[in-house]
Amino acid sequence: MKSFHPKAILKLMGFLLMIEGLFMFGCIPYSIYYGSVDLKPILLSAIITLVSGFLLRLTFRKANNRELGTRDAYIIVSFTWILISAYGTFPFMFSNVIPDFTDAFFESISGFSTTGASILRDIEIVPKGVLFWRSLTHWIGGMGIVVLAIAILPYMGLGGMQLFNAEAPGPSVDKLHPRMAETAKRLWGIYVLLTVAQVILMLLGGMGLFDSLCYAFGTVATGGFGTKNTSYMKYSPYLQYITTIFMFFAGTSFTLHYLALKGKLRKVFKSEEYRTYVGLTLIATVIVAFLLWLIQDFSIEAAIRHALFQVVSIITCTGFASYDYMIWPAFCWFLIFVLMFAGGMVGSTSGGIKIFRHVLLFKNGRAEFRKMIHPNAVFPVRLDGRNVSPEIIHNVLAIFMIYITTFAIGTLILIGFGLALPDSMGSVATCMGGIGPGLGTTGPAGNFAHLHDVSKWTLSFLMLAGRLELITIYILFIPAFWRN
Amino acid sequence: MKSFHPKAILKLMGFLLMIEGLFMFGCIPYSIYYGSVDLKPILLSAIITLVSGFLLRLTFRKANNRELGTRDAYIIVSFTWILISAYGTFPFMFSNVIPDFTDAFFESISGFSTTGASILRDIEIVPKGVLFWRSLTHWIGGMGIVVLAIAILPYMGLGGMQLFNAEAPGPSVDKLHPRMAETAKRLWGIYVLLTVAQVILMLLGGMGLFDSLCYAFGTVATGGFGTKNTSYMKYSPYLQYITTIFMFFAGTSFTLHYLALKGKLRKVFKSEEYRTYVGLTLIATVIVAFLLWLIQDFSIEAAIRHALFQVVSIITCTGFASYDYMIWPAFCWFLIFVLMFAGGMVGSTSGGIKIFRHVLLFKNGRAEFRKMIHPNAVFPVRLDGRNVSPEIIHNVLAIFMIYITTFAIGTLILIGFGLALPDSMGSVATCMGGIGPGLGTTGPAGNFAHLHDVSKWTLSFLMLAGRLELITIYILFIPAFWRN
Repeated sequence: MKSFHPKAILKLMGFLLMIEGLFMFGCIPYSIYYGSVDLKPILLSAIITLVSGFLLRLTFRKANNRELGTRDAYIIVSFTWILISAYGTFPFMFSNVIPDFTDAFFESISGFSTTGASILRDIEIVPKGVLFWRSLTHWIGGMGIVVLAIAILPYMGLGGMQLFNAEAPGPSVDKLHPRMAETAKRLWGIYVLLTVAQVILMLLGGMGLFDSLCYAFGTVATGGFGTKNTSYMKYSPYLQYITTIFMFFAGTSFTLHYLALKGKLRKVFKSEEYRTYVGLTLIATVIVAFLLWLIQDFSIEAAIRHALFQVVSIITCTGFASYDYMIWPAFCWFLIFVLMFAGGMVGSTSGGIKIFRHVLLFKNGRAEFRKMIHPNAVFPVRLDGRNVSPEIIHNVLAIFMIYITTFAIGTLILIGFGLALPDSMGSVATCMGGIGPGLGTTGPAGNFAHLHDVSKWTLSFLMLAGRLELITIYILFIPAFWRN
Repeated sequence: MKSFHPKAILKLMGFLLMIEGLFMFGCIPYSIYYGSVDLKPILLSAIITLVSGFLLRLTFRKANNRELGTRDAYIIVSFTWILISAYGTFPFMFSNVIPDFTDAFFESISGFSTTGASILRDIEIVPKGVLFWRSLTHWIGGMGIVVLAIAILPYMGLGGMQLFNAEAPGPSVDKLHPRMAETAKRLWGIYVLLTVAQVILMLLGGMGLFDSLCYAFGTVATGGFGTKNTSYMKYSPYLQYITTIFMFFAGTSFTLHYLALKGKLRKVFKSEEYRTYVGLTLIATVIVAFLLWLIQDFSIEAAIRHALFQVVSIITCTGFASYDYMIWPAFCWFLIFVLMFAGGMVGSTSGGIKIFRHVLLFKNGRAEFRKMIHPNAVFPVRLDGRNVSPEIIHNVLAIFMIYITTFAIGTLILIGFGLALPDSMGSVATCMGGIGPGLGTTGPAGNFAHLHDVSKWTLSFLMLAGRLELITIYILFIPAFWRN
């Protein structure tokens, strides 16, 4: 592998900071419209971010982006996410909404990683501009700021593809176009389209524009931040259904959306990953709905609606709540906890381990048993009619193991710093998966404010690591990575 | 694969039942010596078991053991374990110590699988003969009744090796001799030697012969059943140290014991699995001891002794308690919970995932990262200086996944039947790993009596599945297994 290119890295990061600064300016109309007190803090944040980015870019203007290689890509993506999360704390801190840096960073990275875990006890008193910024971080992080840069920057050389793979969710994203920049443009196009469609449908359901935008950002990014302390609990069934559908869309591979838009619906329904995604959602919904109807006397409609909403919200790693599942039967909330490891489809904005990997893990497990029965036969793992190479399966198995190990170590740390066992497990699983609510005190009715600072930093790290699918971050800790 | 041989299977199972019957007779001296009320129930159990086995053997006397193949081996081992556990309930039920079949089966399979989880609330009132039987089931199950049969039966053909692999703990046991029967004899020889050595050292420490035998059975089989409600809590530090050493021995590969007996100590210390086993034990002990000394004001000696005892007891999957770890800091008992997934060495009597697999998982994870940095280079996983084939690594990864999935589903069932989350997790992990005490109400100071019947059957299944390393049981559920 080639050596590093720190100047080109810093130049690109400067550009990304400038994009972040521009997004911050987008919050200002709401500060003005609602006459909220956060106008000056947001303006200050935006200027600092924009100028920082500009200066960085100016200093390294002579660096050549085309020389960026694979290792540079890992560094750019990891450090960009840390950098934009750090700058993203300014609106929270300058406005005094979250004066503490640990808390502000937690909230910021929770936004960018589309987790939606919050340390705010009361979000309805937060000034509108800051609240809009909080939801906007989801939207920036959902499709990925680096992917956005690839779409905008015309002169990204070899590095484009590698940057893309380091940030985009999933083992490998289908190229929608031979040129990465075109693929990135199409992805962002679908993303904007979904957002606009949801906003319109929410407006039709009687939600205001501000709330519609914030909730749409939280939905299509599979984030989970909203504008109400009760999330979706007090919204109408219509709005709950609409959001369920869009959460499901956001958890669907964007390649399939692209195919669907081109009228190739047949290809969509042929995807084994998609069918498993639909099947898993339905099975889990039926189980939860049945128990809610049986044990907690929900009406059939309410049981199905809340079960579906909650199952989709967790599988897609969104984290909105239409009900506090902690007061459901223990079996239900533990099932929801298990689903935190599911994740949506590869190439969607969701987090977690992802359906694609679960399908391969299941098929591989079955092949292993067959191999034991017929030791001399060959049982290739096939997906969508094609053989999957042993290297990919190997990699998926390794990621599963790394995921579970990270979960165990994270839980150990949180327990060590005073959180109860279910709460610790829930917090770690929800942050790694980019979901939002955990179990117990960190459940849908709670928040993360009471956690120890060490726990908050641990979870901040896990949100980042989870969003970048662990590997992109962990590889930086391998000494061999830094050797030339 | 060849077809099944039900007659030869039943003939062999008859022989194994006869062995079990003979072991039952071995409890009678204690019933007589202590004048306990269980003489007639045990005599009856022994006769029924012996006669059942004899009749089975007589009926199928013409079947040829030599035709047994791989598939027969899986059937023999799985069903033998169920059968001997079922017959093993007779002493409990006939003596009215455990009148309920669900409970008696739980206790019986907990014994044979060397788990040591108990539904008895007070074991000190159990008649001595039955108590001896309870510990004896550990000893029979530790090295494996089928391995014993291989050592005794002179005419085991092809099936010997396959039977051995289906029952013996670990992915592949080193052959100590080209002939399986000789290997089995040597293994049982070392097993008896360890038992005798421990009994002598316990007697020297002032423990009576009856208790010494029972505790030695529970130790070398890494079982955990004892004769006192307080396990090792009230025994002297000397007895605790002796038991710690023998638990550690029991968790060590018997191949290494064999090498050590032959004076090849150098080879022992060169084993990477052994070094990891020692290292993991020391690191976990230091962490727990430090916290006990720091937070709970233990003396340095007591902190080290209890930490070492408890860590070794859990890693080796024995399950004796020198202290109720549930009243230790939460970090300590959660660390102990995580260690429930460790397991001792391959080729020992311990359970769990086993150190060998963890070493391979770790090395493979490291190789995956290196591959990402240098995509074109080859990074073979090496153990003890030899390359490990990708098939073995693949298999280990698959077992890890199956283990974790089984754990999650088991926990889900127990929660569904009313047990709290930590208790459910602890129960499933401890039963799958063949350890004994779980968390919460099933911890060292508790028992499994209060669980729902469905939970007890689930755990019984998991104890069996865990002892046979999941695959041997799960393969029976694959339709392809039963097809010719």
